Amino acid sequence: MMIVPGFKFSGISAGIKKTGAKDLALVFSENPAVIRGVFTTNKIKAAPVKLDIARIRQSGKGRAIIINSGNANACTGRQGDIDASDMALTTAGALGIPSGHVYVSSTGIIGKPLPMKKIKKAIPMAVQKLSGKSIKDAAHAIMTTDTFTKLFSKKIKIGRKTGTITGFAKGAGMICPQMATMLCFILTDIAVEPKALESALKQAAKTSFNRLTIDNDMSTNDTVLVMSNGKLGNRPLKKTTALYHKFENALSELSYNLAKMIALDGEGATKLIEIIVKSARTEADAEKAARAIANSMLVKTAVYGKNPNWGRIVSALGYSGAHIREDKINIHVNNTKLVNKGIGTGRVTKNLFSKKEVIIKIDLGLGKKDTKILTCDLTEKYIKINANYVT
Amino acid sequence: MMIVPGFKFSGISAGIKKTGAKDLALVFSENPAVIRGVFTTNKIKAAPVKLDIARIRQSGKGRAIIINSGNANACTGRQGDIDASDMALTTAGALGIPSGHVYVSSTGIIGKPLPMKKIKKAIPMAVQKLSGKSIKDAAHAIMTTDTFTKLFSKKIKIGRKTGTITGFAKGAGMICPQMATMLCFILTDIAVEPKALESALKQAAKTSFNRLTIDNDMSTNDTVLVMSNGKLGNRPLKKTTALYHKFENALSELSYNLAKMIALDGEGATKLIEIIVKSARTEADAEKAARAIANSMLVKTAVYGKNPNWGRIVSALGYSGAHIREDKINIHVNNTKLVNKGIGTGRVTKNLFSKKEVIIKIDLGLGKKDTKILTCDLTEKYIKINANYVT
Repeated sequence: MMIVPGFKFSGISAGIKKTGAKDLALVFSENPAVIRGVFTTNKIKAAPVKLDIARIRQSGKGRAIIINSGNANACTGRQGDIDASDMALTTAGALGIPSGHVYVSSTGIIGKPLPMKKIKKAIPMAVQKLSGKSIKDAAHAIMTTDTFTKLFSKKIKIGRKTGTITGFAKGAGMICPQMATMLCFILTDIAVEPKALESALKQAAKTSFNRLTIDNDMSTNDTVLVMSNGKLGNRPLKKTTALYHKFENALSELSYNLAKMIALDGEGATKLIEIIVKSARTEADAEKAARAIANSMLVKTAVYGKNPNWGRIVSALGYSGAHIREDKINIHVNNTKLVNKGIGTGRVTKNLFSKKEVIIKIDLGLGKKDTKILTCDLTEKYIKINANYVT
Repeated sequence: MMIVPGFKFSGISAGIKKTGAKDLALVFSENPAVIRGVFTTNKIKAAPVKLDIARIRQSGKGRAIIINSGNANACTGRQGDIDASDMALTTAGALGIPSGHVYVSSTGIIGKPLPMKKIKKAIPMAVQKLSGKSIKDAAHAIMTTDTFTKLFSKKIKIGRKTGTITGFAKGAGMICPQMATMLCFILTDIAVEPKALESALKQAAKTSFNRLTIDNDMSTNDTVLVMSNGKLGNRPLKKTTALYHKFENALSELSYNLAKMIALDGEGATKLIEIIVKSARTEADAEKAARAIANSMLVKTAVYGKNPNWGRIVSALGYSGAHIREDKINIHVNNTKLVNKGIGTGRVTKNLFSKKEVIIKIDLGLGKKDTKILTCDLTEKYIKINANYVT
């Protein structure tokens, strides 16, 4: 089901992680693929992010992505740039392809130089292990504090043929408003025109990864790359056609599902929280309101404690900067109405927050704009993980 | 030392808190005092906040402040307004003063009606217990999740006389950028002209309470009130005079010290963190940079874990929105240089974060603007407190 014609994967241990867990992944396309990306908006960008941005600008074509976990290669100065290039060069050499067709991603601790000896020694092994079926190994090798692999696949009809879109991602911590410490790689055999691929990816990211916040910390390494190798043999999809929209919808659905997995696997999280804001006056208001709630440590700990303290939601609305009127606010949690026109309904039960997925729906009663944000609860385990995380 | 001529205090248990702890405080001035305040900027304002704002606008004079903890009287609709007025009225009756001269503050859970029967029954007892020496009782009675009382006093020479400024505060959780779930009451016998008192308070709050962030959550109830009863008999201080500046400085120093106590007593905190940003291009940049670091859950957990993960500081700078240049950034922690021109110095030891006060100094190397922010570390205990906090 996850297999995408023309793509091969591997995931191995290069010894970057002290635990010996998998930490080097390779994605390979048999033929040159169109490649597009969305990246962190943090002004501090890791070396591999800068390399990928430059490669997309130069050719926008790619054959391979080499990804390591355990070290972010961020805040590593000139040496970091040299190391990222060297990773691409070594991968290109082992695969026998031009270095400009290799993209690089890194995730892990900031500020430490990459263990290049280990990585360069391991790359030929990653090439040897390439197989169409090994996507789960690759998904495993990009994990840091993630507790499960994140994979999603979709098939769609393109004329009489059936194309595949498959993505794998990592998330966990430093997940924030505009992209997360998340890496996501999406592969498709459907031919898509470069501009159309870029537009579809931006739209998909906007409604998924950019609607995700774990701890409001924005990483230096966030990367989503999509590769289209055209193996399906269809006429490349053009923007604004019906088939393009079908593709864009499928890409958005896939991205939203991966984003949900990332939220559910937020560091230490026990619950997925979906914040829905309805009837805001403007789109910006809807987003401000939703983000204030999603980032409120008090709301997140309340959900964790199954503590129906709705006052914290109202308070977050109050400081969100969104236009609100206290006496117009209605709040539902998992379909139970907690607040009616700004006042508690008294319909509060412990069971409300006991589900694995908690949907908090706020109706501002002022306009017609809606939005959705994904987040998770905040637990002692998040603290433990991040107090001790070193590599 | 804490005694302020002409002021009396009491702090008793009215039974609002289930634990039986003190929960009702009264401040009384023998003669009508000039009173000014700064309040939460949250659009959702608790009933007592609205009452105080109106009273200051009407007369700006006051004789008493009645304060309860255990219930915030916020999001309580029309009934909340009636209850706040009723608290003032009952206090006025018991003291034999006009109701318009009584101010009200509440702190605690949001969205539940005040237990007015208990409060009204207890007010006469609070009046009975009034004494010049009972300020510690009052400071105790306003606590919620605070673990210690917060009191500070300063004496200053006004001509040949010595005036006193004494403040007491509560903080702990929901402490955020523009004022905190904090209440603070400052009393002075020094006569100050109304406009000068307002200006001094605003300046003091700007450099203290508004430089304080525990969890970036802004309360509906934040209030700082200052009362000047003129018992010292000096000519009321006028703005822009030398004595006014002396007073303003003393008020700022007192406020900063109370803010520090609040940070140190942040919910679950083990450490006080002072973030100093130097050489920013603009004041706004300095503030954005300092706040991003102070609110970063990853930085706060790193300090808690004595984990010198400076990459998180640099990453926070990157998404702060402030103008930065990676290769200009220097970072010191407690006088050890961790980052030089954007690169780690390797001078990282576990001991760095082991002090009770951690000073993180960032030099952006771009301009001349500096700022300071107070915060605390983030611990499992914060989560425990807020997952379970109901009353």
